[in-house]
Amino acid sequence: MANKPAPTDALDYAIPSTVPTHWYNLTADFPEPVAPHLNPETREPLKPEELYPLFSKALVEQEFSTERWIEIPQAVREVYANWRPSPLFRARRLERRLGTKAKIYYKYEGVSPAGSHKPNSAIAQAYFNAIEGTTKLTTETGAGQWGASLAMACAMFGLECEVFQVRSSYDSKPYRRMQMEAYGGTCHSSPTDITEAGRKIREEDPDTTGSLGMAISEAVEVAVHSENTHYSLGSVLNHVMLHQTVIGLEAIEQLKKAGEEQADVVFGCAGGGSNLAGLAFPFIGENLREGKTTRIVACEPSACPSMTEGEFRYDFGDVAGLTPLLKMYTLGHEFVPPSIHAGGLRFHGMSPMVSHAKHLGLLDSIAVGEHETFAAGLEFARAEGIIPAPESTHAVAGALNYVKSGQAKDGEVIVIGLSGNGVLDLPAYEKELELERQEKLDQ
Amino acid sequence: MANKPAPTDALDYAIPSTVPTHWYNLTADFPEPVAPHLNPETREPLKPEELYPLFSKALVEQEFSTERWIEIPQAVREVYANWRPSPLFRARRLERRLGTKAKIYYKYEGVSPAGSHKPNSAIAQAYFNAIEGTTKLTTETGAGQWGASLAMACAMFGLECEVFQVRSSYDSKPYRRMQMEAYGGTCHSSPTDITEAGRKIREEDPDTTGSLGMAISEAVEVAVHSENTHYSLGSVLNHVMLHQTVIGLEAIEQLKKAGEEQADVVFGCAGGGSNLAGLAFPFIGENLREGKTTRIVACEPSACPSMTEGEFRYDFGDVAGLTPLLKMYTLGHEFVPPSIHAGGLRFHGMSPMVSHAKHLGLLDSIAVGEHETFAAGLEFARAEGIIPAPESTHAVAGALNYVKSGQAKDGEVIVIGLSGNGVLDLPAYEKELELERQEKLDQ
Repeated sequence: MANKPAPTDALDYAIPSTVPTHWYNLTADFPEPVAPHLNPETREPLKPEELYPLFSKALVEQEFSTERWIEIPQAVREVYANWRPSPLFRARRLERRLGTKAKIYYKYEGVSPAGSHKPNSAIAQAYFNAIEGTTKLTTETGAGQWGASLAMACAMFGLECEVFQVRSSYDSKPYRRMQMEAYGGTCHSSPTDITEAGRKIREEDPDTTGSLGMAISEAVEVAVHSENTHYSLGSVLNHVMLHQTVIGLEAIEQLKKAGEEQADVVFGCAGGGSNLAGLAFPFIGENLREGKTTRIVACEPSACPSMTEGEFRYDFGDVAGLTPLLKMYTLGHEFVPPSIHAGGLRFHGMSPMVSHAKHLGLLDSIAVGEHETFAAGLEFARAEGIIPAPESTHAVAGALNYVKSGQAKDGEVIVIGLSGNGVLDLPAYEKELELERQEKLDQ
Repeated sequence: MANKPAPTDALDYAIPSTVPTHWYNLTADFPEPVAPHLNPETREPLKPEELYPLFSKALVEQEFSTERWIEIPQAVREVYANWRPSPLFRARRLERRLGTKAKIYYKYEGVSPAGSHKPNSAIAQAYFNAIEGTTKLTTETGAGQWGASLAMACAMFGLECEVFQVRSSYDSKPYRRMQMEAYGGTCHSSPTDITEAGRKIREEDPDTTGSLGMAISEAVEVAVHSENTHYSLGSVLNHVMLHQTVIGLEAIEQLKKAGEEQADVVFGCAGGGSNLAGLAFPFIGENLREGKTTRIVACEPSACPSMTEGEFRYDFGDVAGLTPLLKMYTLGHEFVPPSIHAGGLRFHGMSPMVSHAKHLGLLDSIAVGEHETFAAGLEFARAEGIIPAPESTHAVAGALNYVKSGQAKDGEVIVIGLSGNGVLDLPAYEKELELERQEKLDQ
């Protein structure tokens, strides 16, 4: 299908909603093809069938697809309709506080039941696995948004769910484990002693705070060695980027409804790349196909700046070297990021599609320090009422800095990708709140 | 204004929304007038001016108003538009799990930035105080939804906010304090030693778990003795019921859009009464004015069943006897409810308007046990994806029991009031999750 299909209002729900009917695949519009994933042993381009032990066939097909528009199954759209289209807000109170004449919008994914954008892919992955006969999914999670989202999706489609959560987050954010359990899922503190990969890591470094790379190794191992069990990844891979594009597709429609011809600059946070891609790829597609000039800025934590300071080369997605080789910006698969609060951004690499877009100059990246992000998060919360997730504060900080430093022109349209709310990550704000109390005392 | 004004789409936001333009005041339609609040010393009906030390004049006017429709200021509607109209969902997956042919809808207030219905009144109260020159609001809070909501509202309208949180909730739910602080508010564990009322209670019972009644005494005391400071109540009073009616007004419109002539039965949770009133009063109004036959069922905790087992008489709203005397269903103002998880329902009394409606036979009430509520909450979460707040699980349990016991007819329209999400109350589910684990082991 060459042109984007018109949205329909066909959903049989109480509230009419225009949930996109198709996901958008940027692969169809890249001026140069994305480098293929490689078999880690042969270094040959990976064949679809090599991924069947890990992923459902439909998802593998999406991973390799060059089709521009891929239909969203009705069963997935029906679940999406519980929170989609997610709201696009004009941040008028924030604009007034900043005294800017730029127009600041934010696309808010925190209205999903799990509190972030992650269910956009979790629902799709659970659905495609369920119809192919999978009975259980394993996965890794950092801060817990992905694990909770997959547990929710599995509950809806009758699958078991086993989650390996990065130890530092497991210990500091106990509510996420409870959230996964409330959805009927199982949650382990990774590295565990129930996998070979986990035991090996623990022998070498018993006090490790864990990492997404380690947790991926564990989840992959369990999936490969269990019956009717597949692995599920919440970011990085092409099919995950694809599922997230509902964010940007809606945002473009919503901006039109608000009378904006285009967004001038879009700020998104970037860890594995899924929120950024979901928001930005449809805008990049319009830049490529229609000559629009929306600038994309990926905001990374300065503690883990894979695009801003990494190398663009083939690397593993996990620590143990079990995954295919992916062409991406990477800090090296053995890099263990410091234990920052934005657990979802603690990944050594970056989605190959996002990396490719950066390499081609289709997006920029910046790195933001932790203090700056939480200060921006509090400023945003007090103006708009929404406490951003630690990951989302990176996009907020990028936008606030852009406005405060005088780079934003009058009337310019700025879009912030607010990937989730921070209610389950409130302890992350404690240090910033303590700084505020100290400042008051010092006055 | 005799007839309900048509909604307009006048909001200058990105997403067109039909936020109600007026609140609905059931006082105008009660077949007999509500008994007046009494001055606790003279036992004479309270005069508006006697409330001025505590509340803004506009709010006092609303407290005594007999107008049917009261206009919502544009500044309030603009904030409402960030999450209103809140979604009304058809619970199709839950229906399938239950195997029922009844139609189950739920009106979901958990999409508000604070996660519950409470901002509907907090925003209005902060606004009316701000325009009259108040610089600070004090309040009490149970589980913390109200305190967080008022802190958010105060941040938006430039007011200070000081919250007295019931000790049992303060200790068991630390995230709520952080949430209030993230919005710039102050949160105390009540009873404190900074008020006379608090010190007296602590002398008598140093190990008290606190109660809403005690916290009210403290917040009122601080408001009365501070400059430009007013008190703010999150439930019970008439003007709070009024603000919450946006819930039911929207639900009626949404049901119409879904093709339903009327709701057959509405289940709401009831503590102080604000969520129940907000959802139910517009339906009761249509029953009274248009001869509709929607049945309302208030679901109370069996540990604090003020309407189901209390007396209908004048009583104080707080423990220290500082508030006006209110005609209501009450367990006695010295009743200290057990430390149940649904902190928002731990109130000895009930809104006078809700009590009056019950007394006139315009609504029913039932009491639900704690185990039943959390089991219902988990069942709901796994079907619909939303983890209900502990308070909301009472309404869910009421509805599930109605369906499972065969009382629901085919095609019957059931509406559940889902007052909020339970993400910040996840520890409340731990006991139920432990029971589940035990059951699996026993099999």
